[in-house]
Formats: sequence, C-alpha cells, structure tokens
Amino acid sequence: MLILLFFKNLFSSDSMTSEILKEIRKVIASKIPENVEITKVEFEGPELVVYTKNPEIVAEDGGLIRTLAKELKKRIIVRSDASALLDPEKTIEKIKEIVPEEAKITNIYFDDVTGEVIVEARKPGLVIGKHGSTSKSIIKHTGWVPKILRTPPIPSKIVEKIRKLLRRESKKRRQILRNLGCRIHRQPKYENDWARITALGGFREVGRSCLYLQTPNSKILLDCGVNVAANDEKNAYPYLNIPEFILDEIEAVVISHAHLDHSGFVPYLYHYGYRGPVYCSAPTRDLMALLQLDHIDIAEREGRELPFNAKDVNKCLKHTITLEYGEVTDITPDIRLTLHNAGHILGSAILHLHIGDGQHNLVYTGDFKYEKTRLLEPAVTDFPRLETLVMESTYGGKEDIQPSREMAEKRLIKVIYDTIKRGGKVLIPVFAVGRAQELMVVLDEYIKSGILEEIPIFVDGMVWEATAIHTTRPEYLSKTLSDQIFHYGYNPFTSEIFNKVSSSDERKDVVEGEPCVILSTSGMLAGGNSVEYFKWLCEDEKNTLVFVGYQAEGSLGRRLQKNRRDITFEENGKMKVYKVKMQIETIEGFSGHSDRKQLMKYVHNLSPKPEKILVCHGNAYKSLDLASSIYKKYRIETRAPLNLEAVRIY
Amino acid sequence: MLILLFFKNLFSSDSMTSEILKEIRKVIASKIPENVEITKVEFEGPELVVYTKNPEIVAEDGGLIRTLAKELKKRIIVRSDASALLDPEKTIEKIKEIVPEEAKITNIYFDDVTGEVIVEARKPGLVIGKHGSTSKSIIKHTGWVPKILRTPPIPSKIVEKIRKLLRRESKKRRQILRNLGCRIHRQPKYENDWARITALGGFREVGRSCLYLQTPNSKILLDCGVNVAANDEKNAYPYLNIPEFILDEIEAVVISHAHLDHSGFVPYLYHYGYRGPVYCSAPTRDLMALLQLDHIDIAEREGRELPFNAKDVNKCLKHTITLEYGEVTDITPDIRLTLHNAGHILGSAILHLHIGDGQHNLVYTGDFKYEKTRLLEPAVTDFPRLETLVMESTYGGKEDIQPSREMAEKRLIKVIYDTIKRGGKVLIPVFAVGRAQELMVVLDEYIKSGILEEIPIFVDGMVWEATAIHTTRPEYLSKTLSDQIFHYGYNPFTSEIFNKVSSSDERKDVVEGEPCVILSTSGMLAGGNSVEYFKWLCEDEKNTLVFVGYQAEGSLGRRLQKNRRDITFEENGKMKVYKVKMQIETIEGFSGHSDRKQLMKYVHNLSPKPEKILVCHGNAYKSLDLASSIYKKYRIETRAPLNLEAVRIY
Repeated sequence: MLILLFFKNLFSSDSMTSEILKEIRKVIASKIPENVEITKVEFEGPELVVYTKNPEIVAEDGGLIRTLAKELKKRIIVRSDASALLDPEKTIEKIKEIVPEEAKITNIYFDDVTGEVIVEARKPGLVIGKHGSTSKSIIKHTGWVPKILRTPPIPSKIVEKIRKLLRRESKKRRQILRNLGCRIHRQPKYENDWARITALGGFREVGRSCLYLQTPNSKILLDCGVNVAANDEKNAYPYLNIPEFILDEIEAVVISHAHLDHSGFVPYLYHYGYRGPVYCSAPTRDLMALLQLDHIDIAEREGRELPFNAKDVNKCLKHTITLEYGEVTDITPDIRLTLHNAGHILGSAILHLHIGDGQHNLVYTGDFKYEKTRLLEPAVTDFPRLETLVMESTYGGKEDIQPSREMAEKRLIKVIYDTIKRGGKVLIPVFAVGRAQELMVVLDEYIKSGILEEIPIFVDGMVWEATAIHTTRPEYLSKTLSDQIFHYGYNPFTSEIFNKVSSSDERKDVVEGEPCVILSTSGMLAGGNSVEYFKWLCEDEKNTLVFVGYQAEGSLGRRLQKNRRDITFEENGKMKVYKVKMQIETIEGFSGHSDRKQLMKYVHNLSPKPEKILVCHGNAYKSLDLASSIYKKYRIETRAPLNLEAVRIY
Repeated sequence: MLILLFFKNLFSSDSMTSEILKEIRKVIASKIPENVEITKVEFEGPELVVYTKNPEIVAEDGGLIRTLAKELKKRIIVRSDASALLDPEKTIEKIKEIVPEEAKITNIYFDDVTGEVIVEARKPGLVIGKHGSTSKSIIKHTGWVPKILRTPPIPSKIVEKIRKLLRRESKKRRQILRNLGCRIHRQPKYENDWARITALGGFREVGRSCLYLQTPNSKILLDCGVNVAANDEKNAYPYLNIPEFILDEIEAVVISHAHLDHSGFVPYLYHYGYRGPVYCSAPTRDLMALLQLDHIDIAEREGRELPFNAKDVNKCLKHTITLEYGEVTDITPDIRLTLHNAGHILGSAILHLHIGDGQHNLVYTGDFKYEKTRLLEPAVTDFPRLETLVMESTYGGKEDIQPSREMAEKRLIKVIYDTIKRGGKVLIPVFAVGRAQELMVVLDEYIKSGILEEIPIFVDGMVWEATAIHTTRPEYLSKTLSDQIFHYGYNPFTSEIFNKVSSSDERKDVVEGEPCVILSTSGMLAGGNSVEYFKWLCEDEKNTLVFVGYQAEGSLGRRLQKNRRDITFEENGKMKVYKVKMQIETIEGFSGHSDRKQLMKYVHNLSPKPEKILVCHGNAYKSLDLASSIYKKYRIETRAPLNLEAVRIY
C-alpha cells in the first residue's frame, strides 16, 4: 500500500493547478480596480503571470502588484494582452523617443510569446529611469513591457550566445515554464514530517560537490559538480548511481556557483533526460555555461570522452531560471529557495531553503569567503531562520591561516615591481573565474594610484571571456566597485592596461615584447595557455612565475613549488627538457575561500545560530578538524558525513 | 551512462550461471572416484545439489563431500538419481527394519521432487545413528536420502501446518530455490568499494526494527518488524516508502528472531510482490509464522485492517530458508551470512555478514541476552572478523541494572508460595514466546526440587502453542536443558504440572478451581485471555498478579503498576467497574534483553573489537547514553543513527 501509493499522482496535478488558478483569479478580481481588464492568469515557472489589456494602469499603480503578491504569496509578473500592443516599428520609435540618448541602446527586439520588448543598452539604469519611471512610460505608450539587459562594455561571446539561444527558444521556454509552474504549485501530497540530505559528492573531499535533499514531497539537488583532477570516472563524478537518486523525480537543481566542481556535471543530467529547472544567479548561469563548454572542449581536444556534450549545455541553459539575491522563490510545493551573496566568485550564492510550512530551514554555503575582497562583499550571515547549516571546509584545518589581503597585495606588487625593473615578465597562472578578476582589480588599483608604474597586462582567452561576463553584471560586484562603475563611470575591467590575447601570434608578440604581466589559464599549469607561456619564459632568470592559487598534488605547478627545475615536455613526438631558471613565487592570501579564522568567525556571527552543522568540501582531516573545533567552541552539534551517507535534518 | 547501466543485467544471469555450473562439474569430475556416476548438478538456493546414481558410495565416503565443499566453497547436498530409488513401499519396510523401534517413527513420506524420504520420529537421533550410520544405511539400502524431523512431544498445530505446506509445495519450492540459486551465484557486476546501512525502523525507538544493507551489488533487509504499540500506520511500520527501497531489487531478508517487532512486517513484503528468500533459524521460522498469524487474527477480530493477510504468511513460509547457527551461507554474490546464538528467545540469532571478498564484516545483534538463562546459552561474542557492530540498547541507560536471575527467581517463588498458602491464584501475563517458557522451566525446577509444592500450572492457548515449538527444537535450548532432554529423557515442558487451557469453559474451571499459577497472553494485559483471567481474579485479595515483563505506557498493566485500582471495562455495551483488590507484584530480572552491565560487558568481551558501533533498538536517551558510554570507555567510534539516516560502513 505504502509503496504502491508512493509515486502515484506525484505530477498528475493539472486539474489541481487549474483549481488553484481559479482561486487566484478570484483574489485578483477582488483586489484590482474595475478599469483594469485581466485576460489571462497563468504560472510560468515559480512566477504568476497576469495578462492585462491595461498594462499602463497597472504600471502606474506600483502598490497594486505588491498587494497582490503579498496576498497570494507569489511572485507576480504583469504582461500586456496582445490587443494592448503597439506595432513593433512604432514601438521602437517610441522607445527611442522616451529613453535618453545617454542610455546608449544597442539593440531592441520583441518576444511575441511573452509580449516583452527586450532593450539592450550600455546604461540600462537610464532605460529603467528613477523608480522605474522611464520603463513605466514605455509600457504606457506602447503596451510592451520592457525587459532591460546590459550591453557588456567588453563584448562577451557567451553572453551573446545565451541571449540568442533564449530568444530563439522563447516559445519552447515558455511551455517549459508553464509546465514547471503546474509542478511547483501543486498541492503537496504528504505530511512534511522529515527531511534528509544524502551526500552524493564533495564530502571529506574537494570536488564533485553534490547534495541530495529529500522530503516526503520533493527531491532536489544542490550543486552537481565534477572533480576535474580525478583519474577515473568513479572518482570524478558524484554518486548518482545509487538507488534513491531517481532522475525522473528530481524536481530542481540549484547551483551555488559556476566553478566546475559545483556545476560541471549538470549537462550529464540533461544528457540522461532531466528536463527540470536549474536555479542559480544570472552570473552563475553565464559563467557556468562558459566553464562547462570549455571543459567539454578541453576533453575533446585531449581525446577524452565525457558522458555529455555541448548540446546538453544548451538544454541546461534553456531550463535555467535565474534568481536575484534575496528573492524568495517556490521551487517545489514544499521548498522555498533564496540565494544570498557568498563572496566567493561573481554570482556565488549561499542557498537558503525553507522546507514545508515552517518545518525547517537549511542553509548550504557552497564555497564562501567571509571577508570583503576587492571584487565582492563578504558572505551573508543573517537569515530569517536557520536550523541546519552545511558549510565548506577547504581551509578548515587549524593551520590554515592565510595572510591578510593587504599583505598579499603588497607582496604581489613587490614581486611584479622587481621583475619589471630587471626587465622580466611576470606569468600568473589563474583559474578563469574569480582570482583572475580579483588580481585585475588589484593591479588596476595599484597602477591607478601610481604605486606601480603603468605596464601592459595581458589577459589570455578564457580569463578575458570570464572578465567580460563580470562587466555584464556589475550589480553583483562589491559596493566599492559597483559604486565606481555606476556613479563614477569607471570600470577597472575596461581599463586600457588590460590587453586581450587570443591567438598564438599574439601570444608570441607578448613573450617577445616588453616587460609585462600575463594572466592565463590553467591555474595549476595543467594544460592550457599558461603552459605555453611557461615554456617561453621559464629559461630566463629575469622572469617570474607567481602562484596565487592552490596547486594540486601531481600538477606541474606543484612540482615547481617543490623545486623541481628540470621539466620535460613532449613536443612533436619528442621529449624536450626545459631548465627552469625563472623566479618562482607563491603568494597566499588571495583565496576565494574563507580561511580557518574566517570559517570560525562566520559560525560565530551567524544569526540565528543553527542547531546542527554539517561540514563538507574539505579533505577528511580538515572537515573533521573544523567540525570538532566548532563543536568544542560553540557547542553546536556537528558532523562531517561521508559520501553516500544520509543525514536526517529533522 | 552510470544511471542507465546501473540496473541493467542485474538478474539476467542464466547463461552466466550455466557457465559457473560447467566449471563446477569439471571440478567434481576431477575429484570423485570413477565408480560414482553424477547425473545432475544444480543450484538450489544457496546450496549445490549433486544427483548421483551411486548415493551409497558417496554416503559411505564422508570425506568426499567435505573435500568438494572446501574446494568449491559451496554447501553441497547429495541426492539420488531417480534410477537409484527403491520402490516407496519397500523403502518404508526397509526403514522400519533398519531404524530401532525406540526411535518411535510417527510418519514416513516421500518427496519425489527432491528424492528425499522424510522420516518423522520422536527420537530423530536414533534415525540418524552414531556418526550418521543409520541414516547412511537407509541410503545404501533404498537410494532415498532421509530427511529426519522431530515429532514434537507436544503436538504443535503450526509445526504441522508448516510441514504440510512445504510438502504440498515441494515442486514449487524447488523451482523457487533453483531460480534463487542462479541469482545468488551470479558474478558480481560492480567493484565492492562501499557498503552502507540505512535505518528504516527501530532506531532511537523500540519497535519496527528494519535495517537496509546496500552494496554496489546487493540490497538486503535485516529484520522487518512492526510496532504493535503504535497508534497509526506511519509509526507502526518501517520506512519502506523511501526511494532507495526498491522491493523488486531486494535479494534477501534476514530475520534475527521471531518477535513481531523484528518479523511482523515480512508478510507485507510478500503482499506487494517480494518473492525472494527469508533467511532465519528453523525455530524463528515456526515462531514467526505463529506470531504473524496471531497478529493478523487479532487485527481481524478487532476490526483493524492490516496491509497483508494470512496468505502472505504462507508465501513467506514457502520462501523461507532455515539456517543453523554457524552455517556460512552465500545469500547474494557478495554477502555471506552466518547466524550465531543471541540468547534472547528460541532460535534468536546474531547476524554475521561477510561482505565482498574480505572487504567488511558486519554483525547485527538483533535482541540479545549476554547471560546464561534457564532456557538459552548467552549471546556469542566471538566472530572470525568484525568491523562494524550494530547492537540493541533496550536497557542501555545508566540506571538499567537488573537484579540477578537468582534473586528474581527467589522472589517469584516467594510470591507464588505466599499466594498459594493463603488459597489464592497467581496470574502471570506473559508474551507467548520467551519469558513464558523461561518461567515454565523455573517453576518445573523449583517444584521438582521440592522447594515449591506441586501445584497445577495452567498454560493458556498461544503460550502452549509456542511451548510446543520449543519441544520440536530442543537442540536450540541451553546445554543444561538439551542435556536433560537428550541424555536423561527429561523434558520440563512435558512435565505433568503444566496443563493446557484452550477454551472458555476450561478457563472458567481454572478460575473456579484450586490454587494455581496461570500463564497467559497478552503480557501487558492489552487484550487476550490474560485480561479475562484478570477480571475473574482481580476482586479477590487472596490472588496475586505478577508482572515479569515491560508494561508499555497506556497499557492496563502499566496503569495497575501505577496503583490505579478502579478499572472499567465495556461488557455487552455497558461499562463495568472492577475494584481491584488482588496483590500486584512486579518482578524484574527475567528479561530476555541484556541489561546495561551486560551490554557493556558484551562490548568488552567482543573478539575481535569492532571499529565502529551503531546503536539501535532503544529509546533516544538509552541509545545515546549507551553510545556515548561505549565511546568513553572503549574509544570505539559509536553512533546512534536516526531512522532514515544512511551510514557508510566502508
């Protein structure tokens, strides 16, 4: 009985949804003024879409939607009924008339499916206007609801690609969202009397992060990463082959941030038939697609077969729903998700999940930095409620104390200064996303302030592309940076000191040119252009190699740190030995992870205090050390589960 | 890829099995003498069955089968080829000729399917003969391999029923076993690089014990009980409705002992399509069927609907494979099971599971008594290997120290003596299985030795039936008892002091008769005939009510222990109040569970020491107290998981 009933009716909720919509229509009818005609109400993913023949009245009365949203406890989008829409050509004219020229509109196009006009502009704030006045004016005069996108100051191929894809697939996407809406807003079937987390990857290890959250009503994944450093499939991918993981029943995937160890296995889910949503921040979506495609690309070039391909990345994009920090969103009938800034990389989020009707509040930190950096604000510590915390422990060991940012920056500048002075070049191998941009801001700052002389800084391929994405989403950057960009019109990433390098010829010019700084992937000299630069530069003692990130055991970076100085590469079928004479420096303190002190301080500052803390994303020793230290200091129950273990959270 | 491949081919192993059998035939051919003709070799459940035209030669050479078993690492059964069988009538004559009359054969019948002759006798030892000589002689002269069963000195309806069922279903059963054999002896598909236990019931609680053991290759259940005291289905049954529990993929169910909180939900599995084996000891099978049928019966009488019925008990019996203590048995391609005495009730077992090829050894104690009792030997502490122990904690709290057996017995005898002396009757409500028989042996002992005068002892319905099963399996009783029975021909259960009571009229005669002791179910005065006796006896201050077992909160027994003396019953639609005047005594020390001291001592005496101990079968406080005490005293990692949690054991 129990078993047979268990899966029945889980999604046969169409009639139930229409019942719910009927109720909602009643509420709307009772709340809106008589002169507003509603033509349609439907779910679109987590949101409720209201179509009206009088968008201008609704736009004018801002309180109306707020009241409805509060009353219905749903996020509401207002769209215009087809009959209220002005002819597209006239609309374009009208928009150009309404929006000031300084907004620098670069593109206007229409989405017939949603009745939205998409306006791409260099200064989207000016298209919105003060308190949305310009935007409202567009609605009033054209009927079209504007969706305003920033034209990145640095052109980004991936952003362009994603926008095109979503434009092309608008109709399909709306259908996806409508079906999803029915699923999300169904009535929960079972009493919410338990919830548990199964560790599918990234516990007592770093890599392939994957948490499986189950309640009697919902099954969702938090992160789904790969361990790119693993030698075999078994250790590279999360344990999705266990019996409780039923792909068809996964209702949502939430991605904390774009790094591959948190997002790299998502395409696999789509490859094997997952068609549910991925929730993440907008920067995470774009950066994730960039990194996933690069991962597939590298594997192809290296002749390794991955269990997914580039098409799956597109499928994923089609199903991704982006959320802003602080936006409370229903993702299943009994789970509400809110993203909060994690301070780790652009768009990185701490996930807050409210389960049931007040039953439980789970926070998963993902990777987080509890310190203000050049790039980002520190991770959020305040939550409306919190019972269970799952936190990372990359630097969870007692000894994992890092120098201050200031110290790290000074050291970096000194190393660069010395190298340039003696006529050398500085090679900094970096991951594409995160530290690279942090360093760019640092370099720009020190050059701007005159401490460092103006030297060319070369930013290679992937790093450049990731940086472009940063320029699309300045609102996610630290207050200092976004103030600079919005109020003073100064964007460090577009500074002239940075030069994009994207071909072999250009690279050759760089190494043969004047003293400079080079930022290039991969960060551990494990393939990628950083290795090419290394070969060119390593035999000249004037040059310097600077490591600013973790070098994994076995990587070339690590070997160099261990003072190996004869390095052999295979070139055109022959072995060639390089005698490394360049200076090699390791500078700690630029990490996007909280160090031990910051981890402890984070727990200390959490509000409210959680009842239970699960530790993940650290090797066994660090996870256990952090777990026991937190318990000893704060008397909070802690645990460092093993992969494949399930922990009841209530 | 991973997901799709995961379930494929799990059981499509027919061709693989025939490959394995081919190999086995080769080995057999190389080991047996030329004059032994083998006609067939096949798997039957965990065993390998070898058919021969020359059973007499094989029977004569005992070393031959031992050598083969060792070589093949399989349990081997030898059967006769049809051509070697003597005509049945002549066989019966021959058997009667060979077996001495003192064996008291009560029945002889044939199983054409297996080529076995079943001989039921009062003294089965005499049918076997010294070192099996009589048995071998039967084979030699008739070709039939004798299967020798004990005719219970007290007739048991359930034993009779089971024997009939198995006889009737012999052909079907053989097919079941043959299919099972293929499943068990398939090649494991995956590397055994992990195993985990999921707590499905009976963790931080008593009742509905159920553990789910998973390896990459196997899924099995250890115990599958109900909580008869629970108010609703949700708390009564184990969590079988979680996604990783896939009934179709369960390969084996192992039952530690017959009590319903360990076996009561097994019929449910068959009701919903499980057709795999149940492994347990022979007494567990019989007692389990008795208790399961009684459970169904009571529910029916009380108008409660259970999600299974009596037919499912039959299905279960048809699929049950009984094992002896110490018999090492393959139950899946990567799990080997051995039962060891648990000292709790007749046939109760500690389960030793050897996983993989030396990867891990798990011991699950079930309920266990680490003290010699009148009825049973103490629980086994020595195992060939042991890494993870799962142990019960019913009396795991610091304060759970029980008086010695001797003290308890003396108190009981004193209470009975006093009551009888003043002309009263003693009512002892008991569970049918366990304590009741322990008390019978005590009473018999004290009367035999003359300390207590010879008084009639009335044993009501279910208790009598359970006692009858005890007389069928004297080899499972304590050494003292089985010595008495086998060597001195004295069986306390057949003592004349015990009188069976099975009808209302008989019950009335008892309460109206002379001073006596009455043993009747239920043990907590929660329904059953003990309540009827109570009503008859409670208003007379000469009588005594003796509690020897745990009285659950809310039961009548508990209320009486708390000095409630006005008890109301509904009788024929009216409420009737009984003024309780009888003496009420609670005697501790007869428990079938280890007390705190015994639990700690058990861990102390374990050999080898486990690396990890999981605590179950106790309320939250007792489980946690025992877990932390063991850790503090022995520095063994302990854990008291919650239901629904999964613990990695390696």
